Amino acid sequence: MSAQPYFRFEILHQSKKSRARVGKIYTPHGIIDTPNFVAVGTNGTLKALDNQLVTQMGLQLMFCNTYHLMLQPGAEQVAKLGGLHKFIKRDLPIITDSGGFQVFSLAGGKVTNELKSRGQKNYANGILKISEEGVLFRSYRDGAKILLTPESSIIAQKNLGADIIIPLDELPAHSITDLELIKSLERTHRWEERSLNTHLADPKQQAIYAVIHGGTNPELRLKSCQTLSNLPFDGFAIGGSLGQNHAQMFEMLSYLMPALPKDKPNHLLGIGDLKSIESMITLGVDTFDSAYPTKCARHGLLFTSTGYMRVLASNNRDNLNPIDPTCNCWTCQNYSRAYLHHLFKASELTAYTLATIHNLKFMIDLLHHYRQQIQHDQI
Amino acid sequence: MSAQPYFRFEILHQSKKSRARVGKIYTPHGIIDTPNFVAVGTNGTLKALDNQLVTQMGLQLMFCNTYHLMLQPGAEQVAKLGGLHKFIKRDLPIITDSGGFQVFSLAGGKVTNELKSRGQKNYANGILKISEEGVLFRSYRDGAKILLTPESSIIAQKNLGADIIIPLDELPAHSITDLELIKSLERTHRWEERSLNTHLADPKQQAIYAVIHGGTNPELRLKSCQTLSNLPFDGFAIGGSLGQNHAQMFEMLSYLMPALPKDKPNHLLGIGDLKSIESMITLGVDTFDSAYPTKCARHGLLFTSTGYMRVLASNNRDNLNPIDPTCNCWTCQNYSRAYLHHLFKASELTAYTLATIHNLKFMIDLLHHYRQQIQHDQI
Repeated sequence: MSAQPYFRFEILHQSKKSRARVGKIYTPHGIIDTPNFVAVGTNGTLKALDNQLVTQMGLQLMFCNTYHLMLQPGAEQVAKLGGLHKFIKRDLPIITDSGGFQVFSLAGGKVTNELKSRGQKNYANGILKISEEGVLFRSYRDGAKILLTPESSIIAQKNLGADIIIPLDELPAHSITDLELIKSLERTHRWEERSLNTHLADPKQQAIYAVIHGGTNPELRLKSCQTLSNLPFDGFAIGGSLGQNHAQMFEMLSYLMPALPKDKPNHLLGIGDLKSIESMITLGVDTFDSAYPTKCARHGLLFTSTGYMRVLASNNRDNLNPIDPTCNCWTCQNYSRAYLHHLFKASELTAYTLATIHNLKFMIDLLHHYRQQIQHDQI
Repeated sequence: MSAQPYFRFEILHQSKKSRARVGKIYTPHGIIDTPNFVAVGTNGTLKALDNQLVTQMGLQLMFCNTYHLMLQPGAEQVAKLGGLHKFIKRDLPIITDSGGFQVFSLAGGKVTNELKSRGQKNYANGILKISEEGVLFRSYRDGAKILLTPESSIIAQKNLGADIIIPLDELPAHSITDLELIKSLERTHRWEERSLNTHLADPKQQAIYAVIHGGTNPELRLKSCQTLSNLPFDGFAIGGSLGQNHAQMFEMLSYLMPALPKDKPNHLLGIGDLKSIESMITLGVDTFDSAYPTKCARHGLLFTSTGYMRVLASNNRDNLNPIDPTCNCWTCQNYSRAYLHHLFKASELTAYTLATIHNLKFMIDLLHHYRQQIQHDQI
């Protein structure tokens, strides 16, 4: 399948040491150097950081959640206001998901519980019905019934207008039997094909990535790669559970990655811890999205060149050094560990902003470093 | 009394139209143009803004609370870390209060209640005893008994090292009888003199402002001005209740302000709403501190050249204009009302930062505008 004129993937270097590769994804809003980290801005903003600052810091791809934006302010409302890039004032690339992940993973109450304490009403939400047509669920905001179908998810993502979009898939439960997993995978494939067809009817300069499923079953994962590779997707995301621990995930990905088309970009959904990124880059993963680095920051867990650092640890109380003396982020250039320790103790909002700036810059710098290492066949 | 070499007040222009005046306060950390707004950074940071940004925005004087800093991280700890300016990374002037206001106004449970919801323990705190020596209270953080005396407050403020400090005073209750008010005022005067003496024993390049009290009794207010004017204070703050409403406050200040030494700077404690500032500048008030503009911002009440604006108002949902088209703050330069409306609806932390940037810039610009108007005898 030839690349779209508005979306192109170029491999600059294939490591001689591993499957790791350095590339460039060209989108209508600029280039994404790969491998790269994709920060999550669920509601159209990273938590505690504004988008202009995030752009200045060099984040090349931002992940927004269709589920949240569909419910507030609404995808049609975003379209009316000029699309997501204009609405949230981000000139660089954006990727949105289908909304399915949140419906399946959060509708059980997690979002409701999170919001209950912030003055939101508590609706008995969750999945009402899954059928061939799609998934019927209740809005956590106002209890309204919403039918999410492959077609409606893509239309919502057309309204949002991200550079990369994702087809509707089903997130199978961990406890599922093999037979149920096969049925789920087959329906996911049908949903993805319907999503693709809706997209192709009006591409709007967007690229669409397939989502590889199959749970922890290697044969099903392989089948998913084969089935979806035969469709004209622009790239491949890997979704669902890959295993119970890092070793299982690594083993599954080692098996799965060679089955993906080499010449198209791939994306590992929802994985962003440092150990996973370091090891999975060697398998040829191009992009990783995760809320982990920003969430860690808000909980005072900071990333440094010598490992994780808990800012509330008592030995930071008197420490006038920055979080990381090798870091040139705004926070490390200006503030000491002792001050950050104090701000966290006092539960000041400023603490969350300063910590998030640091962890985000750490991720941007880390992935830049990995790209250089791959260029020199060091990983 | 001659001015200190490290602290000097200069009146540049006295309005021909009112008692309003334009001046400059010279401190070891730079100049404060007067009249000016003093933002409150209770724990050594404005809520949701970092100090470097606040300095870049041009805030000339920041108010920190000794009560909070004394309990976390501790005034001695701040001294050990190089003093407040270094600890919080602020190179411009800082003023601290005595801690008394919070002991008297917050110890009744307000702070506890605020903190309860954030995982802090709830101590049955409050004032345990008021005596000639000082006030004994319980820490809201760990329940420890703490004796705040005129001497210990000044020593704490020496440890913090602000450019301007404030003597310990008693905040009389609203319901107090005239006789009790007289007794409270006399004790406050004795506490202030003890505070001054402690300060003068080791000035450390700090200036000290007296605090005028006397509640809503004009004679007592006048007596307080006379008593405290006879002591070598560097400036005069006005504390306590001045009345139940704006008109009463204005009337009291109209009576009180002419009784203060003209050649020394004055400060109105805890008043920062737009109406009060606009009117009280004409009475010759030099500086105003208040958490009101930043607190309004976090509640989505934004200040504009055409009045207050509620960002959550439904007519902002579709509004692609900035908060105020005449404002050149970071928020107005980059983001629309529609986006801010969305961020507030989604309870995103970014909303609080962006709104606070705007309201703070509004106050800085407003006071700059007032200074120009006074220079031209327009107010």
